[in-house]
Amino acid sequence: MSDSTGITAETLGSALLANFPGVGFRRHTIPFVDTAEGAANVVREIAAADAEGLAPIVFTTTKDAVVSRVLAEAPATRIDLLGGHLTELEATLGTTASEQLGQYHTVGDTETYFARMRAIEYAIEHDDGQSSRALDLADVIVIAPSRCGKTPTTMYLALQYGLLVANYPLTDDDFPTDGLPPMVAPYTSRCFGLTTTPLRLSQVRHERRPDSRYASLAQCSLELRRAEDLYRRNRVPFLNSSTKSVEEISAVILQTLKLRN
Amino acid sequence: MSDSTGITAETLGSALLANFPGVGFRRHTIPFVDTAEGAANVVREIAAADAEGLAPIVFTTTKDAVVSRVLAEAPATRIDLLGGHLTELEATLGTTASEQLGQYHTVGDTETYFARMRAIEYAIEHDDGQSSRALDLADVIVIAPSRCGKTPTTMYLALQYGLLVANYPLTDDDFPTDGLPPMVAPYTSRCFGLTTTPLRLSQVRHERRPDSRYASLAQCSLELRRAEDLYRRNRVPFLNSSTKSVEEISAVILQTLKLRN
Repeated sequence: MSDSTGITAETLGSALLANFPGVGFRRHTIPFVDTAEGAANVVREIAAADAEGLAPIVFTTTKDAVVSRVLAEAPATRIDLLGGHLTELEATLGTTASEQLGQYHTVGDTETYFARMRAIEYAIEHDDGQSSRALDLADVIVIAPSRCGKTPTTMYLALQYGLLVANYPLTDDDFPTDGLPPMVAPYTSRCFGLTTTPLRLSQVRHERRPDSRYASLAQCSLELRRAEDLYRRNRVPFLNSSTKSVEEISAVILQTLKLRN
Repeated sequence: MSDSTGITAETLGSALLANFPGVGFRRHTIPFVDTAEGAANVVREIAAADAEGLAPIVFTTTKDAVVSRVLAEAPATRIDLLGGHLTELEATLGTTASEQLGQYHTVGDTETYFARMRAIEYAIEHDDGQSSRALDLADVIVIAPSRCGKTPTTMYLALQYGLLVANYPLTDDDFPTDGLPPMVAPYTSRCFGLTTTPLRLSQVRHERRPDSRYASLAQCSLELRRAEDLYRRNRVPFLNSSTKSVEEISAVILQTLKLRN
């Protein structure tokens, strides 16, 4: 439950629950609860879940005293994700927290908004090697054979970090020579390669084109071996994406290319 | 500091710091710290900041006892974002937290991965009304005049929630009739409209095409008035995006169309 978007509560709540893989959880996010009436609705919903025999746990990020007081009546374990830490920070900083709500995940300044919008449009324009326009401005160029996770990684980096990210597919045509494909070769230092396991790649490609040569284990093995050779020869850092989430791949790229903060 | 991607620490740390708008912070995220050696490097970095006269505050999500012990030597206020809450959850659930690291923001099951990848590809294919293929499968169709925030919102919903989201631009051609544009009219119940203020729209359009008719205040006012009329006539829920972040707009759409959890 949150007085704003619920993203912080959802992220931390999910991170906490992930520590209890043996327990089954039903999840429900309730954003924008910032009045006593809204809180009373949440209490009713919790009471209904309790009556169903569930054991409600509420992760809350609300700072509002009225909302908190109403919520205290709910038959639930309440976990206050911000309150205690705010008190710690107040002590450290020697100042009190602002009373205003929802300063995070709000629009921010216009320049930041433009930068983020530009990043997303850049990522769409430069998906799958479609455009070389302004490629010199790219912060990152993700290269990999088809279906190794280029596009999701590109979009995540653009959306979450406002970076200009292009991606370029490595196809059979790119392997006869020693160098990187001519379009991206001038920007080798900003390239990051993805690879995966042949089995995983074959599985993902079957999803797109079942029983094709493209999806065959032999073809996948060949393309991945050639791609890794290409990365090594050109000193392009790379990562095996097979057991990694988009968030993890992105975090490694940010760290490797020193793009974080 | 995190033993995994750092996303949870970054999200909650930023949410906490947003409560102290009067204080200047320098931020640094250090992901993948999961050894005593890695922790010792962090301690050295903190000591250097301390020596510079800064007052280091460490937000940590690590559960590893060895890493925590090393980190305890750093001259910093340490805020443990998970530890205390895990103890509360252990008490409530009557079970102990798993010892494994980094279960959250990891790849998850294959089906979830495919769904997310499909959602991102669907969003790219259906950006700006480019395709009507499989439009009947859309969970959401975002409609708005040019530059009201359709594309970032679409990408965010696809990436974070794995939803199939299309977006469709309202242009002068769409206003003479009473109904929604023919391409999206069959899916009115899944449409969500965006609007903004004429001043904001004019500002954003000037960024793309300075001093054009397209960016003029008169043209922006006209298009927004017509768009809002269209939303109202067709009972399409809509939101003024001018003071909202992509996260907030997305949270409202999820709630309005009942797509969350």
